[in-house]
Amino acid sequence: MTFSPFDHPYLSGLLGDGEIAALFSAAAELEAMLAFEVALAKAEAAEGVIPQDAALAISDTAHRFSPDIASLRTATARDGVVIPDLVRQLRAAVGEPHGKHVHVGATSQDVIDSGLMLRLARVLPILEGRLEALSASLDGLAAEFGNRPLMGRTRMQAAIEITVAGRIESWRSPFARHTGRLKDFAKDGLAVQFGGAAGTLEKLGAKGRAVRAALARELGLADAPQWHSQRDRIGDLAALLVAITGSLGKLGQDVALMADRGDEIALVGGGASSAMPHKQNPVGAEVLVTLARFNAAQLGGLAQAAVHEQERSGAAWTLEWLILPQMVAATGVSLRLAGELIDSVKRLGAV
Amino acid sequence: MTFSPFDHPYLSGLLGDGEIAALFSAAAELEAMLAFEVALAKAEAAEGVIPQDAALAISDTAHRFSPDIASLRTATARDGVVIPDLVRQLRAAVGEPHGKHVHVGATSQDVIDSGLMLRLARVLPILEGRLEALSASLDGLAAEFGNRPLMGRTRMQAAIEITVAGRIESWRSPFARHTGRLKDFAKDGLAVQFGGAAGTLEKLGAKGRAVRAALARELGLADAPQWHSQRDRIGDLAALLVAITGSLGKLGQDVALMADRGDEIALVGGGASSAMPHKQNPVGAEVLVTLARFNAAQLGGLAQAAVHEQERSGAAWTLEWLILPQMVAATGVSLRLAGELIDSVKRLGAV
Amino acid sequence: MTFSPFDHPYLSGLLGDGEIAALFSAAAELEAMLAFEVALAKAEAAEGVIPQDAALAISDTAHRFSPDIASLRTATARDGVVIPDLVRQLRAAVGEPHGKHVHVGATSQDVIDSGLMLRLARVLPILEGRLEALSASLDGLAAEFGNRPLMGRTRMQAAIEITVAGRIESWRSPFARHTGRLKDFAKDGLAVQFGGAAGTLEKLGAKGRAVRAALARELGLADAPQWHSQRDRIGDLAALLVAITGSLGKLGQDVALMADRGDEIALVGGGASSAMPHKQNPVGAEVLVTLARFNAAQLGGLAQAAVHEQERSGAAWTLEWLILPQMVAATGVSLRLAGELIDSVKRLGAV
Amino acid sequence: MTFSPFDHPYLSGLLGDGEIAALFSAAAELEAMLAFEVALAKAEAAEGVIPQDAALAISDTAHRFSPDIASLRTATARDGVVIPDLVRQLRAAVGEPHGKHVHVGATSQDVIDSGLMLRLARVLPILEGRLEALSASLDGLAAEFGNRPLMGRTRMQAAIEITVAGRIESWRSPFARHTGRLKDFAKDGLAVQFGGAAGTLEKLGAKGRAVRAALARELGLADAPQWHSQRDRIGDLAALLVAITGSLGKLGQDVALMADRGDEIALVGGGASSAMPHKQNPVGAEVLVTLARFNAAQLGGLAQAAVHEQERSGAAWTLEWLILPQMVAATGVSLRLAGELIDSVKRLGAV
Repeated sequence: MTFSPFDHPYLSGLLGDGEIAALFSAAAELEAMLAFEVALAKAEAAEGVIPQDAALAISDTAHRFSPDIASLRTATARDGVVIPDLVRQLRAAVGEPHGKHVHVGATSQDVIDSGLMLRLARVLPILEGRLEALSASLDGLAAEFGNRPLMGRTRMQAAIEITVAGRIESWRSPFARHTGRLKDFAKDGLAVQFGGAAGTLEKLGAKGRAVRAALARELGLADAPQWHSQRDRIGDLAALLVAITGSLGKLGQDVALMADRGDEIALVGGGASSAMPHKQNPVGAEVLVTLARFNAAQLGGLAQAAVHEQERSGAAWTLEWLILPQMVAATGVSLRLAGELIDSVKRLGAV
Repeated sequence: MTFSPFDHPYLSGLLGDGEIAALFSAAAELEAMLAFEVALAKAEAAEGVIPQDAALAISDTAHRFSPDIASLRTATARDGVVIPDLVRQLRAAVGEPHGKHVHVGATSQDVIDSGLMLRLARVLPILEGRLEALSASLDGLAAEFGNRPLMGRTRMQAAIEITVAGRIESWRSPFARHTGRLKDFAKDGLAVQFGGAAGTLEKLGAKGRAVRAALARELGLADAPQWHSQRDRIGDLAALLVAITGSLGKLGQDVALMADRGDEIALVGGGASSAMPHKQNPVGAEVLVTLARFNAAQLGGLAQAAVHEQERSGAAWTLEWLILPQMVAATGVSLRLAGELIDSVKRLGAV
Repeated sequence: MTFSPFDHPYLSGLLGDGEIAALFSAAAELEAMLAFEVALAKAEAAEGVIPQDAALAISDTAHRFSPDIASLRTATARDGVVIPDLVRQLRAAVGEPHGKHVHVGATSQDVIDSGLMLRLARVLPILEGRLEALSASLDGLAAEFGNRPLMGRTRMQAAIEITVAGRIESWRSPFARHTGRLKDFAKDGLAVQFGGAAGTLEKLGAKGRAVRAALARELGLADAPQWHSQRDRIGDLAALLVAITGSLGKLGQDVALMADRGDEIALVGGGASSAMPHKQNPVGAEVLVTLARFNAAQLGGLAQAAVHEQERSGAAWTLEWLILPQMVAATGVSLRLAGELIDSVKRLGAV
Repeated sequence: MTFSPFDHPYLSGLLGDGEIAALFSAAAELEAMLAFEVALAKAEAAEGVIPQDAALAISDTAHRFSPDIASLRTATARDGVVIPDLVRQLRAAVGEPHGKHVHVGATSQDVIDSGLMLRLARVLPILEGRLEALSASLDGLAAEFGNRPLMGRTRMQAAIEITVAGRIESWRSPFARHTGRLKDFAKDGLAVQFGGAAGTLEKLGAKGRAVRAALARELGLADAPQWHSQRDRIGDLAALLVAITGSLGKLGQDVALMADRGDEIALVGGGASSAMPHKQNPVGAEVLVTLARFNAAQLGGLAQAAVHEQERSGAAWTLEWLILPQMVAATGVSLRLAGELIDSVKRLGAV
C-alpha cells in the first residue's frame, strides 16, 4: 500500500528519507510506546505505586516483546487507537502476577503522544544537523563564487546587479533562525504527556505529579502538566517545519529560475527526460518548491486540529496522525535534497 | 516506511481501504503505465507509425515484464520521474529490433497522467457503488426509525422537534448529487493525456491526432487534446472527493453528537478505551469528521498545483502526487466507515 | 476599516472589482434579503397563507424601506445574524395589521442563503462574459502572433520549439470547460433555500412545498428541498471559482516568466518601481498568480464548512461568510486583470 | 465595498474589532509609511547622507501631509504598490530643494514591510493585554465554580468526573505560552526592513548599515539585515496568531457543546432566533470555532508566500497583503468575543 510517495517503493528514491523514515515506522512507534510503558512502570515503582518486581518484569518483558500486528490492526479498527490491545498483549506477555501493573493510571493518548515526542526528540537533532551542514555548504559556495556578479531580479524583472554572495545570504540567513527555534522547542516543547483518563491522574491520587516527573526524567522529556487537549505544542513544531521547508522552497525556486535562464548556474547531473535526452532538469530544485507548498498546505490542515473538544478528541487527534508525520517527512526530504542540490552546483553566477 | 496511516501496518485497520489501496500500489501503477505503452504501440501500429510486429512484441513482453524496482528507485531520484528508466528497461526486455518502438512520441507525463486516469476509472465505480449502498442503508434506517421524534437542533440549541427521517434525509440527499457528478466526470474527465515533449506530438507528424484517438479507445478513456499543463480535470475530481467526504463528515459529526448526548442513538460495538472499560466510543463517526477535515485541507493544497508553469511543471505536478492519492484513500475509507457506522446503528431517535 | 485589499481605498485600484463589489455591498445584501421577504409574502399570499393585502403592504414598504444600520449592527453582535432585527424593523415599518405577516415560516438562514443565491445569479453571467471576452482576446493574439516560434519549456528547461499558438491554446482551452460548468451551476446550483426553523416548514403545514415552489419562481431561482445543512452547492461553486483563478494563475505565471526572460513578450505599461525607473514590472501577471494561490487556500478553508452539524450550524455557516465573498472577489479581479494583461500585450514570441 | 465581514457595516458588530481595525485602516497604513519616510530622512541626515534641513522639511511636511487617495488608487493599479506615487506626492509637497531627499536609497518594500511592523508593534500589546485579561476572567470563574463536578468527556463520551477547575485549566493554560511567544516575537521579530532596490543598500555606499541602525532606532524596531525575500518572520507571527485562535476555538467548542447539552452552563444573553424566540444561541462560542478554522486555513495560504522568488516577489508578497491583516483581525475579534463569552457565564458545572 503506497498512497504516499514518502512510503513508495520507487518514488521514495526521490521523495523518501531513510533516516527519518526509520523513526516513523510502525516498529519505531511500537518501540517508543513500549519505552513509555517501561518508564511508567519504573516511575510508579519508584513512587511506590506498583511493586519494584512488577517494574522489573515489565521492563524485561517489553525489551523482548514482539506484538501481534494482525491483532493490533483488528483492534485499532474497533477502538480507534492501538493501545488497548497493545496493553492487553503486553499484560499477557508479562503474565501473572505483574501483568496488571502495566499501564497503571495511563490512557491511550498518554502513550501515543509521549511516544511521538520520543521520536521527535530524535528527529530534531537530525534536522538541526542538516541545517548546519547546509549552511556550511552555502558558505563554501559563497567562498568560491560569492564575488561574481549576478543580476538582482525583483518582481520578475532585472533590477540592479548584486553579487552571488548576496543571493546566497538570502538563502542561508533564515537557517540560523530555524536552528534557534529548533533548540528552543527541544527545551520546552518536547514534553511528556501524562494525564490519565481525563487529565486528572485520578488513579494515582497524591502521587500523580511525582510519577509524572519521574516518568519525564526516565524518558528524557520535559515535565509538563497534561496537554492532551492543548495542541499548541504540536502546532508550534509544525510551523517550525514549515518555516524550514519554506526557506528551502525559496532556494529551490531561485535555482530553478536560474536553471531556466541557463546562464547563471551550472549543475552536475540534472534529471533525464524520456522525450528529450539533451535536457538537464533541475529536479531537486523543483521538488524543494513542491515540498514547501505541500507543507504549507498541511500546516493549514494541522491547525484545524487545535479545535480539540472536551477532555480528549478522537476527531481532531486522528487528523494530526494523518498530517504531522508527513510534514516531518517533507522537511527531512527537503533538507536532504537541498544538500544534494547545493553539492551539485558546479558554477554560480555569470560565466 | 509508514508516514501515512493509509499505508500503515496497524493504523490501516482503522484508516485503510484494501480495495482502493490495490489500485494505488506501486504494482498497480506500473501495470497501468505498461498498459499505456502497450496501447500506444497498438495505436501507432494501427496508424502505421511503428511496425505491427513491434506492437505485438511490445505487448507480449509487457505482459510478462517485471521491472527492476531498485533501478527504478535510483533513476527516479535522478530524473524526478520513473519513466525514463522504465522505458529503458522495457526496451531492453523487448530487445532488438522492436525495442526502439517503445514509447514513440510520448513523454513521461503522458504515461503517468494516463496511468492515473486508468486507475481512477476503476476507483470511481467503487465510490459510486458505495454511495448507492449507503443510500440504501439510510433508506433502511429511515424505514425502521424514520417516524420517531428527534429534537431538531440549530446553532447548538434545541430548536423544534423533527423526525428521525428528516435528519436522515439531510444525510442522504447530497449522495444523489455526488453520484451524478461522478457519472459526469466519468464521461469527460477521464481523458487520455498524450502530447509528447511539449504538447505538439511533433514526432508523429500528421498522424498525431489519429494515434491519440486510437490510444484513447484502446485504454477506454475519453479522447481529448493534451491537458498536461491544464490541471482543472484533476481539480474537479478532487473537489468531488471533498464533496463526498464533507457530506460524510456532517453525518459523522451528527452521530458523534448524538452519541455524546447518549439518548438519541444506540450503536453496536463502539471502540474500547484503555482507561475506561465502560465507554463505547463512536470511533467511526469521529473519523468521518477527521477525514472530511483532512480532505478539505488537501483540496487547498492540490489547488495550488493549478499554477503549472510553461509546457510542463515538475514542481506543480509532483505536488499532485503527494496529495491526490491520499485524497482518494480518504474518500474510500470514509465511505467504508460510513457504511459500517450505519450498519452499527441499533436505534435512532429517543427511546 | 480595510482589513481586505478587496475593500481598500487605494489597494482596490489593483485588487478591486467595482462591478462585483456592487453585488457584495451591505446595501446589495439588504436589497436581496428584502427581495426574499417580498417574494415570500407574495408566494404565501398566492397560496392563501397570508392575506393578499398583507403581501401588497409588505412589498410596498420593502421597496422604500431603509433599515437602521446601527441597530442591525448591534443586533448582529447579539444574535449572530442580522435577520431577527431586520425582520423586526420591517414589521414595524409595515405596521399594523400586516406587519405580523412578514417572514412567516422562514428562518434567518432561509433569507441569507437565498439572498446570497440572488446575488450569485448576477455574478455568474459577469464571470461568464469575462471568460468569453478573454477567449476572444486570446483568439486575437493567436491570429496576430500564433505562427511565431516559441521555445517550449518543461521542468524549467528549454525543451523543443513550439508556436505561440500552442502556448495560447493551453491558456484558453480550460475556459470553455469553466463556461460549461458555470452554465451547469446556473441551472441546478442557484437554488432557493427555504426550510423554516429546522427544515420542515412546519408553520406552513401542507402548503410548504407549494409556497417554496412559488417563492423560487418569484426569485428566479431553482426550486429545491432545503439545503441549509448540506453545503455541497456552495462547495461546488467555490471549486469552480478556483478552477477559473487557477487557469488564470497559470497564464499569469507564464507571462511573468516570459517577462522575466525579457525577449519573448512585450507589454504596454508595466508597473513603475520607486527605486528603479527603468523597470516595467509585469504587475498584472504576478497578481494573477497571487489570486490563484489565495483562492486555492480559501477553498481549503471553505471546504471545512461542509461539516455542518445538526439542523443548522452557526460555526460552519459563519465560516462561509468570511471566505466565499472574497473568493468571488478574487475571481472577478483575476478575470479583470487577465483581460487587461492580454490587452497590454504588444508582442508575443521572439522578435 | 464589503467583501470582508471584518470590514462590514453590520456584520462587524459580530465580527469586527474597532481597536485593531484602527491600526489596519488605510489612514493608519499611510501614517506608518510616512513615519518611515520621516525616520529615514532623520537617519540619513544624522549620517550625513542628506542635509539636516532636508530632514526637517520632510518631517514638517509629512506631519501635515494628506495624500491624494484617488491618485494613489490609480497608481497602485499600475505599479502594483502605492509607494512610487506616495513618494512622488510627498516630494512635490516638500518641494524644492528638499523634495529629492525623500525616500533616498529605499524601495517600496522597505516602506510597506516596515510600516506593517510599526502597526504590529501596536497590535501585539493589545493581544497580550487581552490574553492576560482573559486569564484573569478564567481565574475568576475557577474561583467561583471551580470545585463543582463536571463530567469529563473524551471521544464524545462521558469518561470520568472531573471538576470545573480542570476544564478551565485546559482553556487557560496555553495562554501563558502564547504570551511568552508574543513577548519573544516583540524582541526579535519586529524588525525594520531596509534593503533598497535589491537588498544591498547600494545607494548609501559605506553608510548603509549605520543608516539602517539609526532608522531602526527612530522607529523603535529591531535592527536586522534586510529580510524582504525571507518571510519566516511573517510566518512565525501568523503561526502565533493561529495558536491563539486555536486555543480559543477549543474553548468555544467546549462552551458550545455545554450549551447544546444545556445543563452544564448558563449564559447571559445568548443570541435571538428569527424563528424560535425561546432559544439562547451560544453565538460567541460558535464564532470562536469559526475564527479558529478561518485562521487555520489562512495560515496554510500565508505559508505559500514563503516561496518568494529572487530578490523580491510581487506574487508572493501581494498574497501576504490579502491574508495577514485578516488573520490579525480574526485574532483580535476572537479575543474580544472570548472575553465577552467568559463574562457572560452565569454558571458553570452542574446545578
